[in-house]
Amino acid sequence: MRDLDESDIEALAIGAAILGTGGGGSPYIGELRCRRALREGKRIRLIALEELADDALVMSVAGIGAPTVSIEKLPEGGEGLRAVRALESYCGCTVDALIAAEIGGGNALEPMITAAEAGIPVVDADGMGRAFPEMQMCTFSIYGHRAAPAAIADEHGNIVLFQRTVSEHWFERLARSTVVTMGGSATGAEAPLSGRLAKQIAVPGTVTQAITLGNLVMAANRQHTSAISAICAQESGVHLVDAKIVDVKRHLLGGFSVGEILLEGMDAYAGTRAKVAFQNEFLTFERDGTVEACVPDLVVILDVDSGRAISTEMLRYGQRVAVLALPCHALLRTPAALAVVGPSAFGLEGIEYRPLSDGRAASNPSSMQIGKTP
Amino acid sequence: MRDLDESDIEALAIGAAILGTGGGGSPYIGELRCRRALREGKRIRLIALEELADDALVMSVAGIGAPTVSIEKLPEGGEGLRAVRALESYCGCTVDALIAAEIGGGNALEPMITAAEAGIPVVDADGMGRAFPEMQMCTFSIYGHRAAPAAIADEHGNIVLFQRTVSEHWFERLARSTVVTMGGSATGAEAPLSGRLAKQIAVPGTVTQAITLGNLVMAANRQHTSAISAICAQESGVHLVDAKIVDVKRHLLGGFSVGEILLEGMDAYAGTRAKVAFQNEFLTFERDGTVEACVPDLVVILDVDSGRAISTEMLRYGQRVAVLALPCHALLRTPAALAVVGPSAFGLEGIEYRPLSDGRAASNPSSMQIGKTP
Repeated sequence: MRDLDESDIEALAIGAAILGTGGGGSPYIGELRCRRALREGKRIRLIALEELADDALVMSVAGIGAPTVSIEKLPEGGEGLRAVRALESYCGCTVDALIAAEIGGGNALEPMITAAEAGIPVVDADGMGRAFPEMQMCTFSIYGHRAAPAAIADEHGNIVLFQRTVSEHWFERLARSTVVTMGGSATGAEAPLSGRLAKQIAVPGTVTQAITLGNLVMAANRQHTSAISAICAQESGVHLVDAKIVDVKRHLLGGFSVGEILLEGMDAYAGTRAKVAFQNEFLTFERDGTVEACVPDLVVILDVDSGRAISTEMLRYGQRVAVLALPCHALLRTPAALAVVGPSAFGLEGIEYRPLSDGRAASNPSSMQIGKTP
Repeated sequence: MRDLDESDIEALAIGAAILGTGGGGSPYIGELRCRRALREGKRIRLIALEELADDALVMSVAGIGAPTVSIEKLPEGGEGLRAVRALESYCGCTVDALIAAEIGGGNALEPMITAAEAGIPVVDADGMGRAFPEMQMCTFSIYGHRAAPAAIADEHGNIVLFQRTVSEHWFERLARSTVVTMGGSATGAEAPLSGRLAKQIAVPGTVTQAITLGNLVMAANRQHTSAISAICAQESGVHLVDAKIVDVKRHLLGGFSVGEILLEGMDAYAGTRAKVAFQNEFLTFERDGTVEACVPDLVVILDVDSGRAISTEMLRYGQRVAVLALPCHALLRTPAALAVVGPSAFGLEGIEYRPLSDGRAASNPSSMQIGKTP
């Protein structure tokens, strides 16, 4: 267990944006709220998965909604704690720690704020190892832990409990329409899981991973070295292209930001033409008709100079970017996971997922012991 | 307390359609379900308001959604009981009786079916004395009893609990979007109220009122007398016009059926041109630019020959209809009620509510003792 300070939070915001692969919401407001909590004397404590007692209770907390909305519609501040308390009260339990449903983007910071208020730690892990647009796209759901009972709270004081949902897809649909009615963004807490189960099905170490990435970027900026090389080295990633954005096609579809960008290679990549498709998060990188990287691996777009992440809603014509592919965690590469977060789950027919090679991913997923809900 | 038999249910369905003023959903499926319950040996028992113990707990049950949907998307059957049980479990209570949120249309029958399954009686009263399109348009809400905590169940097994809603309008919005996501119709149960409060704020005797109306219509049909005169006499109503429908303008707006019909008078009313506006239910009757009847009084459209009610979704060019205005209950005529169910609540600006004269309505509303939620 260790305390996070303001410099950790700054690095976490930068790293979480990278792992957000264009989505997960902007970490900016979350960073400010964490800084204020720290200045008010509250503590943000990080506990490793292996430090959790087997019978500890862990609850995941996340902002839900369209990132485009949450940039402008600021939270009132108490939403997360109200959702956690409502769900604790409904379940008749007290949770020992919170965990991020997704480490990508602003949702890396959401549980930090709520945990600081509740006086409990945040687990160094999450349910995606990145960001995904829908709630069933989470290792907790994929490996049999049901999201319901779950609670969603808004800034007005409304609290809706999803007592029973017949599938994770139904939970996503019902929760999504509630959030849309609440104005497009709200905060949710999902059914607590045991420490024992979290150790099996959470993606481990991802808060530390995001902080490390953020520190690498800041160090590279200070030293005028390449943040992009540092990120690729750290994550066993692939630097796909440096390019200029020559077209952005983007529209809202069912509450999601959907579209694609066209890229024209520059410098060493001159002459290359490429395309990145997205649904809140970047889904595929395609060059000359060949998909070279796709979900669940991370397609990341960075400002070519600073190495800072560019989110889907910030993409603009003329931006000079670097596109990277980073391997996802092995928990996202099992057949069970690929059915939920692989290309076909995003309607990308005809694309077969071929894992980026990576030390971590080379461990045999089929040998994993996957637990059931206790 | 008395048992209802199949002939009571038949009459109830006919009378409830009349009190539905075009809305409240078709009673047809509900009637069939009640008949089956009776044939299976279940009992449908009616208890008068004054028979309720002050500390009895009464829960209102209603189908929620677009009538147009519920005609085609039949309930699975267990929705009402699942909603009641979920809410009982959440509140830690057992209810003693159910009550209709609205007596108009199919929602007169919804609590009968659930109560028969639960083995408890249905109160001879409701929360509207008619039908209204939105859930806050209910005497329970108008006189301070909050709808939340409330539960909504669908045919799949999903159950959503509205733990806390900051206003009755917010409850309506959140519940409505949940029902839309559930496919456009589902069944809800709302926060239980005490027998003492129900005696103060429920519209009394409305199940018996609907059964009486239904029996009048059936008797008139058998005896070849005028059902319309019989209804007007029974309800101190006004026979506004006999006419042919010469135009139907109808569209779906925010999940509601909205529009107006144009009428051309016939027989004694030849030469008359009139207009009826609706939002699920009929809102106004206008002749020569003058509004002669409007909400909360009941504007009722009946088949001119049979005296059977015609619902908004069944309106067709060429139908020969009688339009009646029936006085609403005094509980709907207080300033507090008119703010929620008067013409301005339906966006009908410039229309001042002038009560149809009626013995019942002449009692002074301001002298009523209105209770608060216990």
